[in-house]
Amino acid sequence: MQKKIFLLGSSGSIGVNTLKVVRNFKDEFKITGLSVKTNYKLLLEQAKEFHPEFVIIGNQKAADQIKNHLPINTKLLVGHNGLVEAAKILDYDIMVSALVGFAGLSPTIEAIKRNKRIALANKETLVVAGEIINKLLDEYKSEIIPVDSEHSAIFQCLNGEQNKSVKRIILTASGGPFFNKPAEELKNVTVQDALNHPTWSMGNKITIDSATMMNKGLEVIEAKWLFKVSEKKIDVIIHPQSIIHSMVEFDDCSIKAQLSKPDMKIPIQYALTYPQRLNSSFVETDLIKIGQLTFFNPDFNKFRCLKLAFEVIQAGGISPCIMNAANEIAVARFLNNEIGFLQIPEVIEKSLEKFENNISPNLDDIFECDRLVRIFAAKIN
Amino acid sequence: MQKKIFLLGSSGSIGVNTLKVVRNFKDEFKITGLSVKTNYKLLLEQAKEFHPEFVIIGNQKAADQIKNHLPINTKLLVGHNGLVEAAKILDYDIMVSALVGFAGLSPTIEAIKRNKRIALANKETLVVAGEIINKLLDEYKSEIIPVDSEHSAIFQCLNGEQNKSVKRIILTASGGPFFNKPAEELKNVTVQDALNHPTWSMGNKITIDSATMMNKGLEVIEAKWLFKVSEKKIDVIIHPQSIIHSMVEFDDCSIKAQLSKPDMKIPIQYALTYPQRLNSSFVETDLIKIGQLTFFNPDFNKFRCLKLAFEVIQAGGISPCIMNAANEIAVARFLNNEIGFLQIPEVIEKSLEKFENNISPNLDDIFECDRLVRIFAAKIN
Repeated sequence: MQKKIFLLGSSGSIGVNTLKVVRNFKDEFKITGLSVKTNYKLLLEQAKEFHPEFVIIGNQKAADQIKNHLPINTKLLVGHNGLVEAAKILDYDIMVSALVGFAGLSPTIEAIKRNKRIALANKETLVVAGEIINKLLDEYKSEIIPVDSEHSAIFQCLNGEQNKSVKRIILTASGGPFFNKPAEELKNVTVQDALNHPTWSMGNKITIDSATMMNKGLEVIEAKWLFKVSEKKIDVIIHPQSIIHSMVEFDDCSIKAQLSKPDMKIPIQYALTYPQRLNSSFVETDLIKIGQLTFFNPDFNKFRCLKLAFEVIQAGGISPCIMNAANEIAVARFLNNEIGFLQIPEVIEKSLEKFENNISPNLDDIFECDRLVRIFAAKIN
Repeated sequence: MQKKIFLLGSSGSIGVNTLKVVRNFKDEFKITGLSVKTNYKLLLEQAKEFHPEFVIIGNQKAADQIKNHLPINTKLLVGHNGLVEAAKILDYDIMVSALVGFAGLSPTIEAIKRNKRIALANKETLVVAGEIINKLLDEYKSEIIPVDSEHSAIFQCLNGEQNKSVKRIILTASGGPFFNKPAEELKNVTVQDALNHPTWSMGNKITIDSATMMNKGLEVIEAKWLFKVSEKKIDVIIHPQSIIHSMVEFDDCSIKAQLSKPDMKIPIQYALTYPQRLNSSFVETDLIKIGQLTFFNPDFNKFRCLKLAFEVIQAGGISPCIMNAANEIAVARFLNNEIGFLQIPEVIEKSLEKFENNISPNLDDIFECDRLVRIFAAKIN
């Protein structure tokens, strides 16, 4: 029987790749819902191809552009409320959450409450509310299968293994576009420089996060909650080729790794088909052509965002939420040429100084904290 | 409850490392049987330390050296018959088969018939009789857990996966001591040159097999039977650092690898504890110190033994047995300075020409073939 998929964020890199996987396995999957923030043209195309029951678009103006052109049985919802509403009532088996940032949290919670599988590409959900999400997953017996290539790699390495045997999770990082740039030159890098990722083609937000290495920091927090391990057991290692997507070291000193040429279709497909694997020929990984795999320590002084991430994990409570909100605003302002590259960690630091930690926040606290930090971070000069 | 271990080949590299693992987990394991071919001094030491019920030694002369010095409850058996007898009557849960060559076959069969776990380091058992062994394993519901680092890696990568999803097994090879030596210089290499393995410390037979790359050929055949895959799905790749011990590529283009610094204690321990992993701190694998992992194609023209192995797999039947017997004799003669390094594949080729293939041999055919090929191969000039 076909599995029904609700794809949140269908115009982004993960969204587009998810639809490639679905096209490749039409007998296995059916799209029942699609959402975009603003890209109504692409949404309309996708709706005409996949005939979903619902499409959701971020604002009324964009909605107006398409409302009369959708397939006859496709209903249109608008805004964040529309998204949450669809998560509650749409018929789906798997939610692919490929939204950018904090916005992914609410619809994910609705999917958990309905006992759905969540193929999670939105790492911020676990960053800001990992503990609460884990409790909900237990309560509702739902499951999150990670889509991030690193977490998919770890998930695959843990297949058939016992969690208690994990000695260390080794998250690999490409190092981003500035791995070889001296720290003193970071001050003047442009948006274009920062968007030029060496190995992965991704959206703007995550690409800037890769350049600051905040992305790896968010992934460390995500890994902590996904795999229920202490942050002390999570290491970051620079691996510029992005072939080994991450590793797990076990108590007996054996290490397992998952590898492939960088292509998000592999982890996306795996999250949809797990525990099965389906035959596809997306990617050929020729290690002889690749020639060598290399490894380096990350530079925590040069990449202050990575250091900040480790600090907020240790602090716990609501501080990852503070960091995440400040980072989302800082990245948006950098992309908008309002602040320089090295001001991104400054905005985060100032936000972390301004707001007090709350050691056991509930969901309302998290939403309110996110709102207040955004207002504050938008004004920092 | 302690698992009882019958260790065949306790004076060799695998044997000595097995005892290190047992020493490290005295609450988990107990040695009930030990065997050596000739090294009576070491056997006596081991018997005094582990107090096995049985010890078995290869010949009466060596037996006479120790028969009055063994612990009071330790019984002494002699020769291949003694070994098979012990396999039949000794109290053990796991047989660690670390014998060299064809001699491992009979005791392994007895262990299978008694429904024991076999931790198999003796690859020749599967090389000469893989099909028969697999039938026996099915019939008696026994299990083989591989000890070879490559096969242990594959076994670990397959943990939690479905065999039908395997697209390709990628066996890594260090390339041995002659990887960088021009083919024309192989003619004059000495025994000492060939025994100088770059990454693994092993017994003489397997070290010479590594130098000729016959070892990798034997491993391809072993993998075919262990993992029930066609040889067409098995690739060999040169990886000089011996950190990635092998890989599995799945149908969805995802590759899993197992890695560590080269240390046989890891796969030995895993074969004893599977599906659990026990905490040990044998090995620290620091990928940053190691720096780089590299990969190359094997040279089938330079390493004719590897090519021969792929040919006999395709021929099937009794030809792997012919190849193996000829190789054992040729290696012994090379170690004895009777023939040159490049005569090893010649002896094998001449034996394969001399003896006709038998497409579905029974065990008796295999024993007889092994015997006849040895006589023939010993005389080739």
